[in-house]
Amino acid sequence: MTDPALIPTPAVIVDGDVLDRNIARMGSVLSARGVALRPHVKTHKVPEIAAKQLAAGAVGITVATVGEAEVFAGSGVTDIFIAYPLWVDKAKAGRLRRLATTTRITVGVDSLAGAEAMGRGLGSDAGRILVSVEIDSGHHRSGVAPADAADIAHGAAQAGLSVVGVFTFPGHSYAPGQAPAAARDEDAALREAAAQLEAAGFPMTHISGGSTPTALLDGPTAATELRPGVYVFGDAQQWELGRCRPEDIALTVASTVVSHQRTDSQQPGRFILDAGSKILGSDRAPWATGYGRLLDHPDARITALSEHHATVEWPRGQVLPERGSRLRVVPNHVCLTMNLVDEVHHLSNGAVAGRWAVAARGKNS
Amino acid sequence: MTDPALIPTPAVIVDGDVLDRNIARMGSVLSARGVALRPHVKTHKVPEIAAKQLAAGAVGITVATVGEAEVFAGSGVTDIFIAYPLWVDKAKAGRLRRLATTTRITVGVDSLAGAEAMGRGLGSDAGRILVSVEIDSGHHRSGVAPADAADIAHGAAQAGLSVVGVFTFPGHSYAPGQAPAAARDEDAALREAAAQLEAAGFPMTHISGGSTPTALLDGPTAATELRPGVYVFGDAQQWELGRCRPEDIALTVASTVVSHQRTDSQQPGRFILDAGSKILGSDRAPWATGYGRLLDHPDARITALSEHHATVEWPRGQVLPERGSRLRVVPNHVCLTMNLVDEVHHLSNGAVAGRWAVAARGKNS
Repeated sequence: MTDPALIPTPAVIVDGDVLDRNIARMGSVLSARGVALRPHVKTHKVPEIAAKQLAAGAVGITVATVGEAEVFAGSGVTDIFIAYPLWVDKAKAGRLRRLATTTRITVGVDSLAGAEAMGRGLGSDAGRILVSVEIDSGHHRSGVAPADAADIAHGAAQAGLSVVGVFTFPGHSYAPGQAPAAARDEDAALREAAAQLEAAGFPMTHISGGSTPTALLDGPTAATELRPGVYVFGDAQQWELGRCRPEDIALTVASTVVSHQRTDSQQPGRFILDAGSKILGSDRAPWATGYGRLLDHPDARITALSEHHATVEWPRGQVLPERGSRLRVVPNHVCLTMNLVDEVHHLSNGAVAGRWAVAARGKNS
Repeated sequence: MTDPALIPTPAVIVDGDVLDRNIARMGSVLSARGVALRPHVKTHKVPEIAAKQLAAGAVGITVATVGEAEVFAGSGVTDIFIAYPLWVDKAKAGRLRRLATTTRITVGVDSLAGAEAMGRGLGSDAGRILVSVEIDSGHHRSGVAPADAADIAHGAAQAGLSVVGVFTFPGHSYAPGQAPAAARDEDAALREAAAQLEAAGFPMTHISGGSTPTALLDGPTAATELRPGVYVFGDAQQWELGRCRPEDIALTVASTVVSHQRTDSQQPGRFILDAGSKILGSDRAPWATGYGRLLDHPDARITALSEHHATVEWPRGQVLPERGSRLRVVPNHVCLTMNLVDEVHHLSNGAVAGRWAVAARGKNS
């Protein structure tokens, strides 16, 4: 089957040509900035896509969980950063120890208790796990204040772990107009924390920042590496934040019009697509225009979402697309969409070129 | 492993004793109301749970997609209603035809175009597929006005399909205080549509309504069967709508405190759990108190959710739970949670009794 119109809907379709362009662009921009690229592969969870990123110059990959690290290490990736303040009990320590036999593993830490637990769990192998101290640069999720980074680093070293640096995620970049300020916050926080650790005698080989909204900005950065994820596909959030153009969007959900809900010409028309929250995900930022966008109909709005229904509001006076016709939906947050499907179809020159298994789907622990 | 505290987090845990109680109660209440129970299994997607529902008196099951129907027919269910206005092309017609060789299959229809496409696709087998006309009882998603039901039924009959009745989903019951009014809307809409079809000479064997918020109400109903789904587990939405009590909640996500974010005693404390949107789902109704609830700490609020982080706000002045401690999260919308995991652990008398595969997970088409 090479005709994408024959794929049963709803289904995730990746345009491989756009994907390749996105991967090449991020690689060359960061190379020009003199910053290493360590893409966050929680976005796609596909070893074949990670291989493309590494071939385009990425120094390694970022994951969020031990389970994701196991999948990508199994596919041959040899340098993995688990950018998360893991709580490492005995079972998780065993898994980290096994990973470290084939792979350079760096793990996040943001508390003395977390460092001590990890050291205890790993025992005499603690030194084989590299740790990076997570700092809060303004997103106020996990991570410590930059001024506290050296304390955590000392605790980690005392627990027998190998401290290599600091990292942060400037998640407050995910709001209209906020990316430049978030990038400045990130730079200041990394700079302060790195200086603290350096003064305390830690070798600073790892100074790591985010994110798709900030990675392509050209301001100064203290980071030695950046970890954008979404840039490979783009999504409706990046589109509405102005961080990608519609023609940069590599992933859409093929869907079918199944019902017409309102057709009188005095009001915006309404119809139902068969793509719902069970394939799009239901993230919706307060500033989003809806629960996703239609790639080929930017004036349409997805105003409601159930598990298997998207309600689309259509410009007033325009004829609704016929029942049975297919439309391309851009999810709001593409990382959730990839985590909902076991495989995706990928296209080359508009024809179906094959399928990729979403090998790390659901690896939450 | 029988100690649930050893299951790596985040993980979905089902209390089998509470589950059995919920299944028995819905069975006996609907039996007392004289209404058949056809539970919607998109909630759990687990053949073992469907078997419990059938053993407790359900007349068959409801699903949302052909893929779900295939999984449950494969596990031996012989009466399945696909409560969705399917767009049936040639490929989907082939799948329906195969299903109908072992299983009584009823499919939703809400347009002449949809009925004609289904009839065309099925050809001489059209009469083996039963169809029910979807009507809109106030949720304004798919479905036609009750007054238009007979037109659709005529079209379906002309397309060669076997019309058996009408159905609706009173989704507007999912709002505080709205369930009784939504149940009355459902009753009125079903009554009107059924009368229309009856007057037009259609045998009315199938008059089908929703939903967990309305099924346990004791008002009059024109329905011959109801299709609640969430009642098996309960979730934070049902809890906050007052449609279940905390002790009725059978499914929680085991999670671990990984980070303390704010500990000064002048403000509510904040900490981070390792359960995020990739296991909880990110549905949040406008009236919800947060992105889920903590079963054992009803005063806590989940104020933000990332893919692998839940931010919990803790009552001011109370000591935060220690890093590494485990808490039980009740998802807002349990149907999304089950669609995110490949298997769940189930407990009996507080001990791990086994695992169930979420066999119909991701079967969106």
